Amino acid sequence: MSANNHQYRLAARPVGMTKDSDWKYTEEPVGEPADGLLLIKVLYISLDPAMRGWINEAKSYIQPVGIGEVMRAGAAGRVVASKNEKFAVGDYVAGAFGVQEYAISDGSGVTKVDTRIAPLPVYLGTLGMPGMTAYFGLLEIGKPKPGETLVVSAAAGAVGSVVGQIGKIKGCRVVGIAGGPEKCQYVVKELGFDAAVDYKQEDVYSALRKHCPSGVDIYFDNVGGDILDIVLAQLNRGARIPLCGAISQYNHPEKIQGPKNYLSLLVNRATLQGFIVFDFAQHYGEAAAQMAGWLLGGKLKSREDIVDGLQTFPETFLKLFRGENFGKLLIKVADE
Amino acid sequence: MSANNHQYRLAARPVGMTKDSDWKYTEEPVGEPADGLLLIKVLYISLDPAMRGWINEAKSYIQPVGIGEVMRAGAAGRVVASKNEKFAVGDYVAGAFGVQEYAISDGSGVTKVDTRIAPLPVYLGTLGMPGMTAYFGLLEIGKPKPGETLVVSAAAGAVGSVVGQIGKIKGCRVVGIAGGPEKCQYVVKELGFDAAVDYKQEDVYSALRKHCPSGVDIYFDNVGGDILDIVLAQLNRGARIPLCGAISQYNHPEKIQGPKNYLSLLVNRATLQGFIVFDFAQHYGEAAAQMAGWLLGGKLKSREDIVDGLQTFPETFLKLFRGENFGKLLIKVADE
Repeated sequence: MSANNHQYRLAARPVGMTKDSDWKYTEEPVGEPADGLLLIKVLYISLDPAMRGWINEAKSYIQPVGIGEVMRAGAAGRVVASKNEKFAVGDYVAGAFGVQEYAISDGSGVTKVDTRIAPLPVYLGTLGMPGMTAYFGLLEIGKPKPGETLVVSAAAGAVGSVVGQIGKIKGCRVVGIAGGPEKCQYVVKELGFDAAVDYKQEDVYSALRKHCPSGVDIYFDNVGGDILDIVLAQLNRGARIPLCGAISQYNHPEKIQGPKNYLSLLVNRATLQGFIVFDFAQHYGEAAAQMAGWLLGGKLKSREDIVDGLQTFPETFLKLFRGENFGKLLIKVADE
Repeated sequence: MSANNHQYRLAARPVGMTKDSDWKYTEEPVGEPADGLLLIKVLYISLDPAMRGWINEAKSYIQPVGIGEVMRAGAAGRVVASKNEKFAVGDYVAGAFGVQEYAISDGSGVTKVDTRIAPLPVYLGTLGMPGMTAYFGLLEIGKPKPGETLVVSAAAGAVGSVVGQIGKIKGCRVVGIAGGPEKCQYVVKELGFDAAVDYKQEDVYSALRKHCPSGVDIYFDNVGGDILDIVLAQLNRGARIPLCGAISQYNHPEKIQGPKNYLSLLVNRATLQGFIVFDFAQHYGEAAAQMAGWLLGGKLKSREDIVDGLQTFPETFLKLFRGENFGKLLIKVADE
């Protein structure tokens, strides 16, 4: 390959929201893969809220991205050179290829994907990490039963939209919380949620009271903050809260807002349980097959918010924290 | 009976710590029990942190005590008159007899106790509600496994002391958190805990780091507040937190301190789960038999802090929230 590879590397540990100077745009020649390796041309990069956690210094469930390293990200692309017998030139693949145009890999953690079942971007959303997060978080931690009421925040997002749709498949009453009338209409009219609450315009407490007349049995929490407290105050006995994320809190890790209504867990014998999708990796295959079936059967709809150009990365990333994306946020890096 | 019954009734909804004017001391004649009822002479009254919650107006897991009603409390005494075939004069019994000298009951929720197995006060502590709370909270919610590290707060209290001892029986490393050197010595030297942290004198974070070199697998939380946050920061993967109480927070229900480190539950795939001992009522018998065996075998030690005189109630109750009691706090109401 005579092309150059462009990359975003972490330049500084961000304080609060990331800013342009936290990133460094670099260029290096694309190498030939050595024996056992493959070279991937990245076509789409996934932008996920969890990435904000990966660039804090604190030890977490995964090593922090080091200063100077290519920013970690899920991505999908095509194999353009291979000295690994498991992959052939032309294969479509997904993996943690990072925020760059080309990636060299030894194939570990790389999945071949079938673009006849779903377009490539879907493998970064509903059939990718966000979809797996929704699937295992709801089914294994939330344990939905028919007739129960499920509330999900960030309901129009990559995870929340799948959580709500699986909730409907499992026979729950599903109420989404999202920002703005467009997202609220989308989850009700397109995705089949029973109701949606616009947290930017409505009083969330009374809107939930109205839409959850039998209380809340499962709250799939993507946001933390005030909304977590509001839902805690409406839990039913034996409620489950899969703790998936806290996007309202990620940009000020030094002063996280703890849930002041957490004693509702006590009086309602309820459970707040954290989970990490990676723990379910050995079951991704079954889940993906199930989800692909739902997609093909029209029970599950997928929406991507695709922004063009690697160089938009510093700005596009911020859309997540401003609630500006609508569906799974991706950067399109190149045409095939 | 020609005696008079003296009682403490709730006079006002307390704001913050209870004060004398929140209670009303009343007198009424002791009646004869009608058909099906029994009359109990109360000998010991149990003072428990949960009582603070019962006098808030807010709906909780149990009806609030109404203004003018006799204050609800667990108690133990002797049957002095009975028109209920299940109880005979002279029987020792425990039940929710309230803060008073005599109680009339239809027998529901009243348990006969055997003072040959343990002295009457023990039936309000280790063999009573606190003991059951410890037993079911640790075993059913905490799910201890041999070799795991268990941390318990309010470790010298009625619940915490039993939690730690059962933890030792189950093969855990047990670290207690208590206030003052006397309590810390007690849990280590008398009760066999592996270590104790004096939260009044030590830096709890570094003391726990030292005493829990392999991290925390189970945290039995009786206190909430800063200590909950400190332990959250030291959880192991898959940790369980039975949420039993939050005595540091009960006197300012309007501004509960939420756990700002709750996202540790997420990264550690940990569980914070509330429970109420009453839910396990159908299994009290088995638990009491097991615990009585441990008591008789010297594996479980019980300590009571007994204050003389019903009229000390308003002041004695406050000892709980000042951490002044040492063992299960009781009021002795009368000699037999």
